[in-house]
Amino acid sequence: MDYLVELREKGAKAKQAARQLAVLSTTVKNRALLQMADALEKRRDDILEANAVDIERGRQKKLSGALIDRLMLTEVRIRAMAEGLRQLADLADPIGQTLGGALRPNGLDIRQIRVPLGVVGMIYEARPNVTVDAAGLCLKSGNAVILRGGSEAITSNTIIARIIAYAAEQAGAPENSIQLIETTDRQAVNEMLRLNEYLDVIIPRGGAGLIRTVVENATVPVIETGNGVCHTFVDATADLAMASDIAFNAKVSRPGVCNSMETLLVHEAVASDFLPGMLERYAVAGVELRGCPETMKYYSAVKPATEEDWATEYHDLILSVRVVANLDAALEHIFRYGTRHSEAIVTSDLANANRFQREVDAACVYVNASTRFSDGFEFGFGAEIGISTQKLHARGPMGLNEMTSTKYLINGAGQTR
Amino acid sequence: MDYLVELREKGAKAKQAARQLAVLSTTVKNRALLQMADALEKRRDDILEANAVDIERGRQKKLSGALIDRLMLTEVRIRAMAEGLRQLADLADPIGQTLGGALRPNGLDIRQIRVPLGVVGMIYEARPNVTVDAAGLCLKSGNAVILRGGSEAITSNTIIARIIAYAAEQAGAPENSIQLIETTDRQAVNEMLRLNEYLDVIIPRGGAGLIRTVVENATVPVIETGNGVCHTFVDATADLAMASDIAFNAKVSRPGVCNSMETLLVHEAVASDFLPGMLERYAVAGVELRGCPETMKYYSAVKPATEEDWATEYHDLILSVRVVANLDAALEHIFRYGTRHSEAIVTSDLANANRFQREVDAACVYVNASTRFSDGFEFGFGAEIGISTQKLHARGPMGLNEMTSTKYLINGAGQTR
Repeated sequence: MDYLVELREKGAKAKQAARQLAVLSTTVKNRALLQMADALEKRRDDILEANAVDIERGRQKKLSGALIDRLMLTEVRIRAMAEGLRQLADLADPIGQTLGGALRPNGLDIRQIRVPLGVVGMIYEARPNVTVDAAGLCLKSGNAVILRGGSEAITSNTIIARIIAYAAEQAGAPENSIQLIETTDRQAVNEMLRLNEYLDVIIPRGGAGLIRTVVENATVPVIETGNGVCHTFVDATADLAMASDIAFNAKVSRPGVCNSMETLLVHEAVASDFLPGMLERYAVAGVELRGCPETMKYYSAVKPATEEDWATEYHDLILSVRVVANLDAALEHIFRYGTRHSEAIVTSDLANANRFQREVDAACVYVNASTRFSDGFEFGFGAEIGISTQKLHARGPMGLNEMTSTKYLINGAGQTR
Repeated sequence: MDYLVELREKGAKAKQAARQLAVLSTTVKNRALLQMADALEKRRDDILEANAVDIERGRQKKLSGALIDRLMLTEVRIRAMAEGLRQLADLADPIGQTLGGALRPNGLDIRQIRVPLGVVGMIYEARPNVTVDAAGLCLKSGNAVILRGGSEAITSNTIIARIIAYAAEQAGAPENSIQLIETTDRQAVNEMLRLNEYLDVIIPRGGAGLIRTVVENATVPVIETGNGVCHTFVDATADLAMASDIAFNAKVSRPGVCNSMETLLVHEAVASDFLPGMLERYAVAGVELRGCPETMKYYSAVKPATEEDWATEYHDLILSVRVVANLDAALEHIFRYGTRHSEAIVTSDLANANRFQREVDAACVYVNASTRFSDGFEFGFGAEIGISTQKLHARGPMGLNEMTSTKYLINGAGQTR
């Protein structure tokens, strides 16, 4: 039960650190971020050496090429991690911002301000850069963080966490602002999920399996991220050239991410004009196509889609395609199979655009643009901790503001009730 | 397993209702609230009759007088429930409100608007008026609600829920906007806590035991409410007359609620001036006093406080009192024993007032006012669903705004990434 001791110790330390972090000046936080960035670059060779250990172990374990790629650090990737921290230093500090307030009739002066969440538990998978991203975002937003990366990346994560934690402390951040769980015992995750005494929130980042485990077992509040079965609906009045570019981009530009499209819905009135060219464009780009019977008429390479296809996030160059009778049928399909992440309509009809945005229940609802824009950087937040697919607390891309809570400050002159 | 069938059926119906509620006009929602109010008054005698059944059963079960009182409905209480609904009709509709937005450099026009949470599960204890409050707040904020009241009030809750659900539907609200779980099987609560397929959030209202059960077992996101170990710190520079009134009010005005004070902290420099009179004032009002050794010197009726006392929410006319060396010691005590609900300082020192508000981590931090003001009505929200003591989503008194989520509407002209 060594992991339990480690977890509870780190939890208690994080809670103390959070108390100091909550009142730490922006100047010190920014200095810490910059020194973390410098330290990563200065210790580049040590990081690469540690990473080589993970890569070697991964190869022995026969991890897939894609997984090895996610695991791998390079000079360029380390520089990108450092640059990410420098950009965070440039962003406005959300802490202390006044969100609203009122002078009440009884003279009480009420003001709501942003404060940190407290202690954030991050549970993530292979990519070691998340260690740096999450630590930076938490520090800038005044939160202490306990990091729990995947066992595949433990050697890389351990050295990275030590480097940035030390640099932050040297720059004046409280001790234990950034801590990594160093045991790879899987049981440690389960304990972390129930560490309500010390953790204010858990943010999982990774595949559907990880997210499910966290949601099902956590007693600490969770912000659910990822998991996008996103649709693009090509309406009867769509500009078909625009629709083709949007639908192509939404699927092909980066199929492995959560904001990419999984299902293309096409109004039957434009199916014969739109689908043959569109399906060929996908096929040429190497996209495997699965469609409804109507879709299959328009291109020979389309295989039949099953019920399961409509509910699947492929994370791959696979697309399901369905011809629908009208906007209502598209809305119904999205209601049934969508994961409330990002949905798009391509249309020239104002009423349909408005109805789609009003009636589709999702974090991001697009008119005439690619779902791929659901991203903290694209939204102008300057940083992203993930994309929330739940309705509580934050919905859609989460930046620094979403890493905060609030408190009410009430000033009186002796009021009683 | 009948309750499972009931739960899943009601969940599916609520999800359909939520879809329509999300786009229901304010006019119809307000008309529904007014007709619900009228129906309650019109059916008053039937409600009282049903309530008498619960009261009789409660007496047979030897429920405490306090519990019977919470359970009991009267003409006045029914009128108050109806008035609450009418007041909700007067409040601004939060749904559709624009919270912010930006025109991005690439021409994407991004706007964040308020939308309902979806389906809210309310789990609560004896008071039947919560049935009406919760249904009204959910309807106004466009949420479908599944209500699960305590078994003691099942006869009252059943008739009330039927009356208001029917009235709402007659006024044009979607069918099944308001549903009550009619089985009193305790297992139904456990199943409800894991009904992620249909519920977007669960809000428990009740004692610490209920809240703990919900937090520990729910996989549906929870908004934790209640549970207040609140403090008042009388600083060395406090106006002692003001301090006496605030500290008296915070304890005595309504000891059974979560925003009442449990522990009084007194700066040692004013202990001898302040405590004898203050303690006598409490004693005369029937407050049982438990204190640190220093406190016991100032009044004979003070019994010794144990470690457990500092962590206890009495919900009663009992107060623990501690003399502390300075502001730091008060902050330390609050950090250790507080439940992050409401905390107050009485002081004339600006620096100490600022430090207290900055460093105390709680939903509401008061200077020179009673913690009893932590309340949605006192804050000017016009309604209250509860007081959140967690940091995610909402913190402090929750009104209509806190019953909402957001979505991003993004309008483009063919942008791809």
